[in-house]
Amino acid sequence: MFADAFASDPTALGWMVGSPPPADRLVRFEDGSFFRFPQWRWSFSHWRELVPTVNVARGSGPVSLLPNMERPELDAVMFVPLGGTRPMSWAASLAANYTDGIVVLHKGRIVYQRYFGALAPERPHIAFSVTKSFFGTIAATLIAECTLDPHATVAHYIPELRAGGFADATVQQVLDMTAALKYSEHYGDASSDITSYSRAAGYLPRPPDYAGPRSDYEYLATVPKDGEHGAAFTYRSINTSVLGWLIARTTGKPLHQVLQERIWSRLGAEHDSYLHIDSNGTAQAAGGLNAQLRDVARFGEMIRLGGRYNGEQIVPTNVLEDIRAGGNRAAFAKADYPTLPGWSYRNQWWVSHNRHGAFMARGIHGQAIYVDPKAEMVVARFASHPLAGNLNIDPTSLPAYEAIAAHLLAHAD
Amino acid sequence: MFADAFASDPTALGWMVGSPPPADRLVRFEDGSFFRFPQWRWSFSHWRELVPTVNVARGSGPVSLLPNMERPELDAVMFVPLGGTRPMSWAASLAANYTDGIVVLHKGRIVYQRYFGALAPERPHIAFSVTKSFFGTIAATLIAECTLDPHATVAHYIPELRAGGFADATVQQVLDMTAALKYSEHYGDASSDITSYSRAAGYLPRPPDYAGPRSDYEYLATVPKDGEHGAAFTYRSINTSVLGWLIARTTGKPLHQVLQERIWSRLGAEHDSYLHIDSNGTAQAAGGLNAQLRDVARFGEMIRLGGRYNGEQIVPTNVLEDIRAGGNRAAFAKADYPTLPGWSYRNQWWVSHNRHGAFMARGIHGQAIYVDPKAEMVVARFASHPLAGNLNIDPTSLPAYEAIAAHLLAHAD
Repeated sequence: MFADAFASDPTALGWMVGSPPPADRLVRFEDGSFFRFPQWRWSFSHWRELVPTVNVARGSGPVSLLPNMERPELDAVMFVPLGGTRPMSWAASLAANYTDGIVVLHKGRIVYQRYFGALAPERPHIAFSVTKSFFGTIAATLIAECTLDPHATVAHYIPELRAGGFADATVQQVLDMTAALKYSEHYGDASSDITSYSRAAGYLPRPPDYAGPRSDYEYLATVPKDGEHGAAFTYRSINTSVLGWLIARTTGKPLHQVLQERIWSRLGAEHDSYLHIDSNGTAQAAGGLNAQLRDVARFGEMIRLGGRYNGEQIVPTNVLEDIRAGGNRAAFAKADYPTLPGWSYRNQWWVSHNRHGAFMARGIHGQAIYVDPKAEMVVARFASHPLAGNLNIDPTSLPAYEAIAAHLLAHAD
Repeated sequence: MFADAFASDPTALGWMVGSPPPADRLVRFEDGSFFRFPQWRWSFSHWRELVPTVNVARGSGPVSLLPNMERPELDAVMFVPLGGTRPMSWAASLAANYTDGIVVLHKGRIVYQRYFGALAPERPHIAFSVTKSFFGTIAATLIAECTLDPHATVAHYIPELRAGGFADATVQQVLDMTAALKYSEHYGDASSDITSYSRAAGYLPRPPDYAGPRSDYEYLATVPKDGEHGAAFTYRSINTSVLGWLIARTTGKPLHQVLQERIWSRLGAEHDSYLHIDSNGTAQAAGGLNAQLRDVARFGEMIRLGGRYNGEQIVPTNVLEDIRAGGNRAAFAKADYPTLPGWSYRNQWWVSHNRHGAFMARGIHGQAIYVDPKAEMVVARFASHPLAGNLNIDPTSLPAYEAIAAHLLAHAD
């Protein structure tokens, strides 16, 4: 059992307050305390204070308008959590899944916006694997521009990986996470490969006697093949690290610069964002983006609008049509996600195939962008749930989003 | 002999370019390469990519105007380097002392502005000990507001230091660096105390078997007394760390917040700045500020104008009168700086007592703010000189500033 959202409130617990903070209120990278609950309710909103980061500038243009038309009645919208029987209100769901911040856009207007715990509108929060959807969108754009060949192999672009498991996986297989690799991603299990990867890439501190790879790319070369590429969807963050490498290699630019040039500086963002980097300076495409929530919502709105936002076509429309159409549902079904029946995965996006055609960016501990084209709704959420997997968060969020979408469709503002 | 400014140009050398950068072009914190010449010509403009940092926000107000009235004739202004006989041009001096960027304000207008190497107008650069003058100004302001008593001892405010050398030093002695301590600050000498301090505070990587203090504050408690406080000026960065602690303790706020609230958010800065922090989250008052050069120039202009800038009194006028009047010249003379005859040190500022009443903020490797009240001139400079001490940089900068000041006084625009 974990302390609930109120009992684990990072402000009430006083993490890192004082000069110096008391020993039992320190949150540090080097001793791993930054990545423990409830400390991470503070860490997720203070990532750059823990690790090296690189800035992603908003540019010098004006901020794009998100008109505020708050609809307080949303708090009372009811839904039944997945697997449950008792209805829950939208307002109650926010604490139930340890929400740090949530923004709901309807037709491009902010209809709901709340911040909790250590978060505030002007403070960046780590997006974790929501980052993947940013870089998946960029990679798909490079494919549309014929810079990346989706059928070419990873080794074709990255000879450094020709001896490893990624060598003969195609770019599209990496994008859709159907590369077959001997690599497990079980958060909370210290013997899982995600732990070794995290130590190499700088997400976790290294033991004093550490002798493993010292960068994201070094680690990728060590991953063996396990089976046939293309057969099954298996969620592995290292696919996105390879994707980041492919983007950097084919554009000839560092990832943070590509994100800045192609997306961040075009959104009319309120703030710069930033990326966690490893000791090679490589930005963590799989999970390193930190941004303010309204700016993440702007990205979601751009995606909802078929790539056209803030006066320009930021992503080609056909790239977003392809994502919305989804991936291989049979391959996805093999991963057996109980909360995602009938879903698929395409270009680093999770596609629901529900009646509204909703699709998502999803990150551990409850990070999310939920795009509902039919309801003209975008939800952007940051959270700090005590458990990593969205399996624990979906029950109080997916049906809540659907209920809000239905409400917005039924009750014109 | 070191490669000159052109041969050591960090852009030409291609540090951290490539995915990944070639092994001989990596600049990393963990192996110490970030703090070697010529690598640091890159590092100083990419500090947050190497270490944890905390943001210092510019706030939401408009940018304060720095009208551009460039005077290209300044390039040809001649001066004789200290100890030299052959005249040198202002333009040549910039390369001679490895300038990364320089802004000259005259009556609040930009009359000269150049960026070299890895620097660009929108890129922050580490200010090193120029940071001290920001926090010295803040501490002096707290004294003026009667929040800090200059005659009280360090132990009065910080009981954690009551067993160490700082215990009975007064606040003013710490501000003026006349505390008598067993602590040497010889850059380039690995056995100097500055190395131990830097490892504790997170400026340098720790050896694998490291068992020393793990934070700035922990280190400060270990420094013994050596002599009588108040007798002599000795430049020791740990004074400013104690000063930072005094500011945080008496305001009840973290240093980065104090800097943001009292100075940075009031200047009409173009950009946020940021501070290097240790693993306790303590901002490095002695040298951790990273900022864009024009914003540092804005701070200098505020200082020149007696604290009034951007429509408000940011620092009390009497604080700046006190700084301009200087410190104890006899105490300063004992430090025997060959390039600074007749100077003094007051509240973390270096005071020339020359005919123009010029005073400076000074940081290793050539960081500087030079305020010339008579000439109504402010120079802000970032540099990446191969040698730490300003002894190596003063000969081609102090007389150059004086020559530019004389030129601006003599030739009205």
